[in-house]
Amino acid sequence: MTRDTPPQRRRGRHLPTREELRIWRDFVETAETLQHELSTRLQRDCSLSPGDYRVLLALSEAPEQRVRSSQLADAIDWTRSRLSHHLGRMERRALIRRAEPADDSRGAEVILTPTGAEAFHGATVPHLGAVRELFVEALTPEQLAAVGEVTAALRARLGSSRTT
Amino acid sequence: MTRDTPPQRRRGRHLPTREELRIWRDFVETAETLQHELSTRLQRDCSLSPGDYRVLLALSEAPEQRVRSSQLADAIDWTRSRLSHHLGRMERRALIRRAEPADDSRGAEVILTPTGAEAFHGATVPHLGAVRELFVEALTPEQLAAVGEVTAALRARLGSSRTT
Repeated sequence: MTRDTPPQRRRGRHLPTREELRIWRDFVETAETLQHELSTRLQRDCSLSPGDYRVLLALSEAPEQRVRSSQLADAIDWTRSRLSHHLGRMERRALIRRAEPADDSRGAEVILTPTGAEAFHGATVPHLGAVRELFVEALTPEQLAAVGEVTAALRARLGSSRTT
Repeated sequence: MTRDTPPQRRRGRHLPTREELRIWRDFVETAETLQHELSTRLQRDCSLSPGDYRVLLALSEAPEQRVRSSQLADAIDWTRSRLSHHLGRMERRALIRRAEPADDSRGAEVILTPTGAEAFHGATVPHLGAVRELFVEALTPEQLAAVGEVTAALRARLGSSRTT
């Protein structure tokens, strides 16, 4: 940014500067690259996709390790149709099982199997270790705190202007 | 973080704290939500996907608005096969055209059409306006600078430990 450009020209109703655009692109691309690397390692080391891990995590934290599929879809922010296809694949690998209750419309009960619990416990330490290595330890405590502040500010803005 | 936990227990070889994990999840999810919102608006207001926009941007910036498909694939970091399918769809909408040169193996020449140039120019102001509204203006100048620092630190770490 040049000293002779007053702030109201750079912000206000004008388009972003080249530097602002670079920071935005880096932000989005770095988050994608980080997530891609974590997914690659989870798949390679533990044979789990990020979706498998999220489902297993939600079930592990639930009382009696069982959750209605409608609640699970809300918890991991997927549509019921996407979740249902995903659960079918996890069921064939014996990571979960589904029980259809007759009493209401909250969807099948999804239950963590011993195989699923074992897969989740085996994946947790390497996965969280990778998060530590690639994210937490790459940043100073001040930078980590700044990320927390920045994401809160962005979420507040996104929350008040979502089109979908 | 509690005062009685020494730093070497929280960082070092131990797993991330609950707060560190929350910041990591917020970072990745906020970037995804931002990108999703920008894509939704680009599609709704300009009938372009983010991929269309990236191709049109690369062509607009190229000398004579033409680029070999191999260079284009490198520039936007797609495989040649993915790009080829995408270009087929863009060609059917007359946004680009392809010319097959006989002289080398750098792939077809991809050329911006007047329709493509018009679509790109029509999309630029609303798209960059959305980046300004949802990203640049949501942050203070200090927070924006912090994002730049954080992504540089994360990219340095990712660059030295990629599995793929």
